[in-house]
Amino acid sequence: MKSYREMSNEELKAEIDVLMKEYRQYQNMDLKLNMSRGKPCLDQLDLSMGLMDVLSSEADMFCEDGTDCRNYGVLDGIEECKELIGDMMENRPDNIIIYGNSSLNVMYDTVSRAMTHGIMGNTPWCKLDRVKFLCPVPGYDRHFAITEYFGIEMIPVPMTPTGPDMAIVEKMVSTDEQVKGIWCVPKYSNPQGYSYSDETVRRFARLKPAAKDFRIFWDNAYGIHHLYDLDQDYLIEILAECKRVGNPDLVYKFASTSKITFPGSGISALATSPNNLEDIRSQLAIQTIGHDKVNQLRHVRFFGDIHGMVKHMHKHAEILRPKFEAVEEILDKNLSGLDIGSWTKPKGGYFISFDAMPGCAKEIVAKAKKAGVEMTKAGATWPYGRDPYDSNIRIAPSYPPLNDLKTATELFSLVVRIISARKILDNRDKAE
Amino acid sequence: MKSYREMSNEELKAEIDVLMKEYRQYQNMDLKLNMSRGKPCLDQLDLSMGLMDVLSSEADMFCEDGTDCRNYGVLDGIEECKELIGDMMENRPDNIIIYGNSSLNVMYDTVSRAMTHGIMGNTPWCKLDRVKFLCPVPGYDRHFAITEYFGIEMIPVPMTPTGPDMAIVEKMVSTDEQVKGIWCVPKYSNPQGYSYSDETVRRFARLKPAAKDFRIFWDNAYGIHHLYDLDQDYLIEILAECKRVGNPDLVYKFASTSKITFPGSGISALATSPNNLEDIRSQLAIQTIGHDKVNQLRHVRFFGDIHGMVKHMHKHAEILRPKFEAVEEILDKNLSGLDIGSWTKPKGGYFISFDAMPGCAKEIVAKAKKAGVEMTKAGATWPYGRDPYDSNIRIAPSYPPLNDLKTATELFSLVVRIISARKILDNRDKAE
Repeated sequence: MKSYREMSNEELKAEIDVLMKEYRQYQNMDLKLNMSRGKPCLDQLDLSMGLMDVLSSEADMFCEDGTDCRNYGVLDGIEECKELIGDMMENRPDNIIIYGNSSLNVMYDTVSRAMTHGIMGNTPWCKLDRVKFLCPVPGYDRHFAITEYFGIEMIPVPMTPTGPDMAIVEKMVSTDEQVKGIWCVPKYSNPQGYSYSDETVRRFARLKPAAKDFRIFWDNAYGIHHLYDLDQDYLIEILAECKRVGNPDLVYKFASTSKITFPGSGISALATSPNNLEDIRSQLAIQTIGHDKVNQLRHVRFFGDIHGMVKHMHKHAEILRPKFEAVEEILDKNLSGLDIGSWTKPKGGYFISFDAMPGCAKEIVAKAKKAGVEMTKAGATWPYGRDPYDSNIRIAPSYPPLNDLKTATELFSLVVRIISARKILDNRDKAE
Repeated sequence: MKSYREMSNEELKAEIDVLMKEYRQYQNMDLKLNMSRGKPCLDQLDLSMGLMDVLSSEADMFCEDGTDCRNYGVLDGIEECKELIGDMMENRPDNIIIYGNSSLNVMYDTVSRAMTHGIMGNTPWCKLDRVKFLCPVPGYDRHFAITEYFGIEMIPVPMTPTGPDMAIVEKMVSTDEQVKGIWCVPKYSNPQGYSYSDETVRRFARLKPAAKDFRIFWDNAYGIHHLYDLDQDYLIEILAECKRVGNPDLVYKFASTSKITFPGSGISALATSPNNLEDIRSQLAIQTIGHDKVNQLRHVRFFGDIHGMVKHMHKHAEILRPKFEAVEEILDKNLSGLDIGSWTKPKGGYFISFDAMPGCAKEIVAKAKKAGVEMTKAGATWPYGRDPYDSNIRIAPSYPPLNDLKTATELFSLVVRIISARKILDNRDKAE
């Protein structure tokens, strides 16, 4: 296709006329499609229904060590669950605390504890004038919402296909004592689906923070969420690398089964160094008597071991792969060569990141909505919901049925073409 | 029996000799009995095993409003669960937020949120020089642990059989702006099993706090945990009373199913006014996408309605009642008339409170332990673990099988007699 940039004004106007007719047709379809959140679809949820059978009224509710999972106790998780989640996270079971149903909640609590009590004996953040977090952008809106809620200043750092721009990260972390953390989704990042390169992980592990209580918030949300079995990304395990380079306490690593079994009814976990664990357990013992061990046991019995979990993830991939491929195919078909946007092609995770021409994202999302297709709010992938380029849009292909998804993506790319063509005309107007 | 106080020194010494021989016999039995925590026993846990069958792989996992309980969403709980827990708490469903497995966690988070963000627009407590909580004593150690953890100053207020000494509560709350809260277990209190009288509840609802952000932390942990069906305590519902007297935002009310189904795998809830709910939801939306809806649905399907839950509680009472009665009978038999201790006779809840002669509690608990009977740590029922009278001991009859419980109580009362006799001799020595 001919690049829109090379089209004359007349060509562009004619193009818009054609596209708008097509758009009206979509509007007449009364669509109600949603590509806004990374929600598993019904077929994916059905994959885990066996979870409901492994603990019946006849079931043995005891752990291997004799613990009755039904009663109080066991602050940081039953052993067999630590074993399973350890294999999932690539960490030793004794580096892990098993939590409730939400890793977001664990991240929130981790920031909250740092606010009120500080990290490993350091000044509570609420007593400091200013606390800053580095935020690779585009990134995950719920991460940014936590730091915003606690009044933590968020500093955007550009993402690249190999991870955050490490020169900027290194400089800020090593020179500014107010920088206390960085949000990372290291594997199949939200929203691009990028995975950090070996060099990026090595440089993270070798950070020399000015602040003793600087921590990397390593949200390994998509650690085993591959779309392809053989062509999958593999990261250097960050805790081990930190330990090897003499930086053992640098990382809090988070994960959950939310997109493995049932979102909201799974188990979450934190992996970190013994020093950090001790610090955290002293608070956790005040906060709760323990998390849901019956659900931990249920997950262990359902999967058996990590191989069971990996086989289960293949089934998710069978459902998700055609959806990702459909979105990519339609975007390719409708937008390639037009020079009005670019998008990522992840090997895993839950999102595709779309970069529109600067100044177009909000209009695109609004116009898609007017035809019944809901996208993630433009700006959501930036701290404070403000994308300075008004360019990034997160596409979440998982939830809609395949045919709906195709329709939604056709409409989306149509809208991208309309808004971009108008923007080019507009820009030429202004340049005159 | 003759009061120890009226015995001569010689009589007391002879008594101690006899009792010590008996004590040696217990020591030779190699007992390992635990009366320290309010843990349900195995038979009680078995009552809820049907919970494991109501959601099978064939189950309908949808709410009545069409919500798929397996997926993300529904921040404050599914409607049918609010309905059930509303009936349990005697509150309207729309005054309720359903949380995860631990009401302790909800209380912790409530204090933590007040520390970092304040209550309904008031100054965050972490920005204040001093924050105080009133603590009816004896009380619940895990409450006190939360306020201690956050550096909140705890002020003991004497408990009476009708509730906290309200004259003191009223005076402190109305005159001291630093007093921000009070811990209450209003029904079958921990550890005495006292229930607040109507007058007490009315006076609570009519408090005129100096601090706008003063809240009553009303931990209704044992709301339906009766030992007797007809002879049960009934309280004026506090939220309704607060609303009637024009004090709608005064109370956070907590409850859970921890001692109804499985401790650690139940659901918890908070009931409060619309203003407070709005304040809390704005934080909750940052902390999590939602709590475990599958477990909410499981509880709803298991109980059906509040009548199902009440029938279930009768079964708990059948198991617990003989245990409470056995403890009381043995204490009566061994200690009545000796004038060396007093204890409560609750109609519900999980504890019996024992008041030893001042200065004896620690020694009693230590000596019981040396014969293999573990009691709650002496002092635990007071803020900072410091009972200034060294007198109160919490007895938890629920966990040990009935015969073990009888043995443990025999041993306990024997130890009370030994330590008290020695204390009387000691006191006479010092008085000379």
